[in-house]
Amino acid sequence: MQLSKLAFQVSKNPPANADTINHQLLVQAGYVRQLMAGVYTYTPLGLRVLRNIEKIIREEMNAVGGQEVLMPALHPKANWLATDGWNKIDVLFKLKSRTGKDYALGQSHEEIVTPLAKEVINSYKDLPLALYQIQWKYRDELRSKSGILRGREFLMKDMYSFHETQADFDRFYAEVKQAYLRIFQRLGLTAKATEASGGNFTEKVSYEFMVLTDAGEDDIFYCDACDYCVNQEIAKVKAGDACPKCGATLQAARASEVGNVFDLGQKFAKDFDVTFTKADGSRDYPIMGSYGIGVSRCMGVIVEKYHDEQGIIWPTSIAPAQAIILALNGAEAYAQEVYQALTKQGVSVLLDDRSESAGSKFAAADLLGVPVRLVVSARNGKQIEWKERTSTTNKLASLEEVCQWLKSS
Amino acid sequence: MQLSKLAFQVSKNPPANADTINHQLLVQAGYVRQLMAGVYTYTPLGLRVLRNIEKIIREEMNAVGGQEVLMPALHPKANWLATDGWNKIDVLFKLKSRTGKDYALGQSHEEIVTPLAKEVINSYKDLPLALYQIQWKYRDELRSKSGILRGREFLMKDMYSFHETQADFDRFYAEVKQAYLRIFQRLGLTAKATEASGGNFTEKVSYEFMVLTDAGEDDIFYCDACDYCVNQEIAKVKAGDACPKCGATLQAARASEVGNVFDLGQKFAKDFDVTFTKADGSRDYPIMGSYGIGVSRCMGVIVEKYHDEQGIIWPTSIAPAQAIILALNGAEAYAQEVYQALTKQGVSVLLDDRSESAGSKFAAADLLGVPVRLVVSARNGKQIEWKERTSTTNKLASLEEVCQWLKSS
Repeated sequence: MQLSKLAFQVSKNPPANADTINHQLLVQAGYVRQLMAGVYTYTPLGLRVLRNIEKIIREEMNAVGGQEVLMPALHPKANWLATDGWNKIDVLFKLKSRTGKDYALGQSHEEIVTPLAKEVINSYKDLPLALYQIQWKYRDELRSKSGILRGREFLMKDMYSFHETQADFDRFYAEVKQAYLRIFQRLGLTAKATEASGGNFTEKVSYEFMVLTDAGEDDIFYCDACDYCVNQEIAKVKAGDACPKCGATLQAARASEVGNVFDLGQKFAKDFDVTFTKADGSRDYPIMGSYGIGVSRCMGVIVEKYHDEQGIIWPTSIAPAQAIILALNGAEAYAQEVYQALTKQGVSVLLDDRSESAGSKFAAADLLGVPVRLVVSARNGKQIEWKERTSTTNKLASLEEVCQWLKSS
Repeated sequence: MQLSKLAFQVSKNPPANADTINHQLLVQAGYVRQLMAGVYTYTPLGLRVLRNIEKIIREEMNAVGGQEVLMPALHPKANWLATDGWNKIDVLFKLKSRTGKDYALGQSHEEIVTPLAKEVINSYKDLPLALYQIQWKYRDELRSKSGILRGREFLMKDMYSFHETQADFDRFYAEVKQAYLRIFQRLGLTAKATEASGGNFTEKVSYEFMVLTDAGEDDIFYCDACDYCVNQEIAKVKAGDACPKCGATLQAARASEVGNVFDLGQKFAKDFDVTFTKADGSRDYPIMGSYGIGVSRCMGVIVEKYHDEQGIIWPTSIAPAQAIILALNGAEAYAQEVYQALTKQGVSVLLDDRSESAGSKFAAADLLGVPVRLVVSARNGKQIEWKERTSTTNKLASLEEVCQWLKSS
């Protein structure tokens, strides 16, 4: 991509109404635009980041045997009445057709996936079954002030699994927990699996995956010495207490929930009368789990974690490009050549070919947060100045070397 | 993909409530499931087809300089009041938050893209600008009975362009028209550019891209001798009349609108006060166009056009896989080997490894409509029986040959 052709450019100033780092930097760097509180447009570069996050999640969900589907966002009232969600869930958006039919907007998809699974579950041989999707969710939040951390419209990966026995559910649940830890690691996030309440979905304990950040909306107590972590909402401990698991001292922190896993038991299967034939011929309700990851929220949390005074510092795994070429005065033609050569080699690269000062291009590169900055200038001739966003030093290299380093990164 | 692991399988019988071919075949083959009239879930195989269609559209939109963004589906009332769409558009879904805020669901995105473009249009140097997205749309249709041809929730590619002059708009409009004809050709569809009314959007004439099919909801008059085509809604001619362009005899036909292009003039720019500085220093409103393609509708129209008594016949460009391997009795191990070898070579292939009779596997392959059927049987040893879905003859080939043919197809 050539920056001169991009509609959404970096701005000199942060937006006026941004009260979180992610909102401020994502808008200023040109990755998103706010339509209203909690509802955002993704620009071409922002969409790239979102798609990169999706790709990592998709790979790990496929690896645990998840089958990707796409369920609608517009739901009939009947499905939400069946679980009493219609009356109980306060964030559920409701609407009416002009002929008077009632609909809900998907705030989660248990109400859709359960009857869908009913069509294909008949015998224990059809189990386990895990369906997932990456789909926009709609929630009527009272407050939505944390940039893309808490959306009224937000992108979620939601998986639902169905099992013959509690033991099989437990096995899969543990596998997904590991997959989640891998996903967050690949995204550059250290997520703590945190005990929490099951919320609207279940009366059992659930696990939330929490990333420590001041922009978060949860308070947790965690242990540095082991993996114990609990949401304040259900905690029977407090900061300074001894860890119930290892005895070390518990810490308090603000955190943002990037994922969760729920043991739903047989609730939804019973609500929609989903049964299967067991090996002994009797019928039973499957055990069900649900597993969410806030895809757009992850993007926001990553910005909260990875930035400095100059701008965003994307982890390489999800950056909108591997490198950005700065075409300085007098080196425009060679910069184009470098851009073409790298693009041809399959390297994802941006070219700052705007009619801007060198200083403004350096500032834009830092704000955008692409992992590697390549300066092409008349002074350096055919040599390219390589600088990593996380480093303070740079070095000169040939086009061949640059290409080789980027291809192996 | 191994069919034995897929949750959604082919069914012996068509669904009870399907009144169109696309609904019947897509459900029976396991590509979609109906949640309610006009609202569908896409299964893993269905999602593949949808993504393949998206990819073709994306390539052609990028080729004309479109920049892909993703705008929200949840819109503030203010945007729809600004154009009077809030009161005038009967298919607009409206909803209220629990604090009493009014929202609309995107039935199209002129109301969002115009103020978005306002943020980046300042001078004639910022024009032309073309933004597009592939996003779900919501329309409160009174009737929605044609499978995925007319959705209350449906996937659309919508592009919006902004221009300095009418002449530049005309140039771009002509380019997009050609891109559209390329897209439909790549999808296997012959679309006629048809004069139609501008509908809610404009008082000017628009163009609809019509594919002849009895499942369509429009009536058109067209000329076989030239490219003249007009929607009955605005036609001053009838079947049997002389073509106003070339004098040949006009035909009548049912058709489905797979795309449209609108000359929006300055309406939306004026509604949202979007102006730019011209070269002479004066300010003017840009000329705007919008360009839609019904992505999910295309999938349905393709099924309407490409099927026979046995099932769907996907064009290779959008098929969920290039080939399907049937593992017949006694050849399961070799079928696995063929599957692994082709997959490793980057060929997208399905493996029917279900415990079903040979007859049932042959029927499934035809119903699924994958372009090439590869039968692996004990009788043929290492030879593979190659049969194209559109052909009645087959031939034996080595794994090497099969691989080579598929890689070059």
